[in-house]
Amino acid sequence: MTAPLHRPRPGTPDTQQAMRRRNLSRTMYTVAAEGPLSRAAVAQHIGLTRAAVSTLVDELIRAGLLEELGPQRPGGVGRPGSALAVSGQGPAGLGAEVGVDHLAVCAVDMRGEVRARARRRVSNRGRAPKPVLAELTELVREVTGEAQAAGLRPAGLAIAVPGLVSRGTTTVVRAPNLDWHDTDVASLLPGDVPVTVENEANFGALAELWLAEDSPADFLHVSAEIGIGAALVVDGQLLRGTRGFAGELGHVPVRPEGPACPCGGRGCLEQYAGEEAVLRAAGIEPGPDRVSLLAERAGDGDTATRRALRSAGTALGIALTGAVNLVDPRAVVLGGALSHLAPWLLPSLERELTRRTASPEDGVITSGLGSDGPLLGAAHSVVRAVLDDPMGAAAV
Amino acid sequence: MTAPLHRPRPGTPDTQQAMRRRNLSRTMYTVAAEGPLSRAAVAQHIGLTRAAVSTLVDELIRAGLLEELGPQRPGGVGRPGSALAVSGQGPAGLGAEVGVDHLAVCAVDMRGEVRARARRRVSNRGRAPKPVLAELTELVREVTGEAQAAGLRPAGLAIAVPGLVSRGTTTVVRAPNLDWHDTDVASLLPGDVPVTVENEANFGALAELWLAEDSPADFLHVSAEIGIGAALVVDGQLLRGTRGFAGELGHVPVRPEGPACPCGGRGCLEQYAGEEAVLRAAGIEPGPDRVSLLAERAGDGDTATRRALRSAGTALGIALTGAVNLVDPRAVVLGGALSHLAPWLLPSLERELTRRTASPEDGVITSGLGSDGPLLGAAHSVVRAVLDDPMGAAAV
Repeated sequence: MTAPLHRPRPGTPDTQQAMRRRNLSRTMYTVAAEGPLSRAAVAQHIGLTRAAVSTLVDELIRAGLLEELGPQRPGGVGRPGSALAVSGQGPAGLGAEVGVDHLAVCAVDMRGEVRARARRRVSNRGRAPKPVLAELTELVREVTGEAQAAGLRPAGLAIAVPGLVSRGTTTVVRAPNLDWHDTDVASLLPGDVPVTVENEANFGALAELWLAEDSPADFLHVSAEIGIGAALVVDGQLLRGTRGFAGELGHVPVRPEGPACPCGGRGCLEQYAGEEAVLRAAGIEPGPDRVSLLAERAGDGDTATRRALRSAGTALGIALTGAVNLVDPRAVVLGGALSHLAPWLLPSLERELTRRTASPEDGVITSGLGSDGPLLGAAHSVVRAVLDDPMGAAAV
Repeated sequence: MTAPLHRPRPGTPDTQQAMRRRNLSRTMYTVAAEGPLSRAAVAQHIGLTRAAVSTLVDELIRAGLLEELGPQRPGGVGRPGSALAVSGQGPAGLGAEVGVDHLAVCAVDMRGEVRARARRRVSNRGRAPKPVLAELTELVREVTGEAQAAGLRPAGLAIAVPGLVSRGTTTVVRAPNLDWHDTDVASLLPGDVPVTVENEANFGALAELWLAEDSPADFLHVSAEIGIGAALVVDGQLLRGTRGFAGELGHVPVRPEGPACPCGGRGCLEQYAGEEAVLRAAGIEPGPDRVSLLAERAGDGDTATRRALRSAGTALGIALTGAVNLVDPRAVVLGGALSHLAPWLLPSLERELTRRTASPEDGVITSGLGSDGPLLGAAHSVVRAVLDDPMGAAAV
């Protein structure tokens, strides 16, 4: 009779060093979220003694991550504490986006403010990775120069791509709309800063989590550029999937014997609600910036366009019924191009969810970040890596 | 220009006390998984000093959670260390299961061994909660008596139910096959031990995670009694959903305009692969223990039964395609009644997954726990609550 296996709890040994790193991080997040704050206020917020917090704060000031604003509220009671704020200089996060018809780069400081940005319209469909990433590097240099002139130092570059990225790597396994396969993005970049690569829907969802006011900690984020992507946030964490492939809502079967999909399946959501399918149904030729054209025509009351969006909404509703039943998110968030088309997608989408009794607790929400989500999410992922480990390699 | 919100990291303040609790827990898990071990070996496993571990171990021995087996390996080098083992007395976890046609209870000790169990066949369909739980209480008393006679002390009672349980409560929101609605299970029990209540598919998945050899840390567990349930395990954690309703695979639309489902939707998976639908297609009257009858007839080569199971497998494959695309699990595990029918479900199920290119990395696995999963998962959830916080209220 052997006893069954007790799986040990995950996690690294709980040393003083690990505890100190977490408390440095907690101090940074507290000042970022609630600052300016005195040392005493920080101590109260994170539940440590004022003496312990002072040591942490001094270390963060020396590293240029926090700064003192001088005595706070001279009219208050007792000895005035010096107010602390996150430094507007020091490390910055570089975010980049490789779109099917554009490239974009921005720099965000530790306070979360965008300090430089560049965008170029360019058709990347079927274009080889090397020239695309060479052109992206030009934009990165331009934004880096501007950021450095403002006293910032790039701590890392995070790139959003419209494809599947193998988890924990910088390799795009496949990006059908770019026609990239097994492309190691980092190997085609200069390598002067650490590079991370992530699916654009994932960065869009993270932007929603980090930047939207009152965003829930559990939601399903649905977005579209040419294809349809989704990302799941659970308890404030992105659910990446074993291989990094989670969120492939576009290939959920809507009608199992429907039209063949390039993925090998039949009747996938993209066959009903992807940009190509919607343009075809609306009688519009493919081309750049078709989402604005769809929104314009729908706004003008064009019957074919409205019908096309209505039936895309129905297909989205069917696919989302399955998703909501499976993961019970607090809300479904429509982001990216879908946020611009929401007025015409929502009625039929919500009708499906309601008649199939799969309504999430907070319903379906339209993202306020629109098409900026993935780019901002990318830049903020670098900022947060610094906040997570303020004295780590990226930060100092 | 206000800076965007930086959401503070979740978690309680990182105090010495919290660190001590985690290290006590880590010591228990290490001895449970790897024991018998000397103090020195425990120290090496968890990355703390031998002195620190000795203090932790002494506390756990005084509380009756660990015991010393005497000098270990007298032939070894150096001073022989006294081997430590998890105590076979002390706290025990009580697990219970309310099934549509049975009740079951068991007691599991801290070593993970089942020390007492009782099972009663009874038809609970449409029966009011009060008499069902009164009968369950008789079984709990019987098992508790047996456990106490063996020197064990029940630390809690966890109950698996075939329905939706509101997260963090003991209330069954709805259990269609029992016809229970908004039933607070704990309020109908004596209250002599702490009670937790969870969906049976959730406990089935946890049993798979905790007890199966080599089970992955990311998987989708699909099970069936009368309805079809599923549970998602991500990074070794159960994904419960915002309201606790995650895993409702039975109501994922398979054919959006298919037969009406009591849930209000149409063409839900249960309409094709639920027990009632399969029995109807196989030409078998409903009744107790129909899964064994299906397996027997399919084994005998009965054409109608085999066809019924084949088409149930196809429907499962379509629903699972969506699920695998959404969450990218390492494996799909067929548990509960489905594990007994796997030989006849798997070929058509896997064909759908393959042709829709949604194969999980480790494929589709059949659970070795069978119908015992939910009951064992329930009992072990209590055992693990003690391992998680060994000096907490439940343990001492």
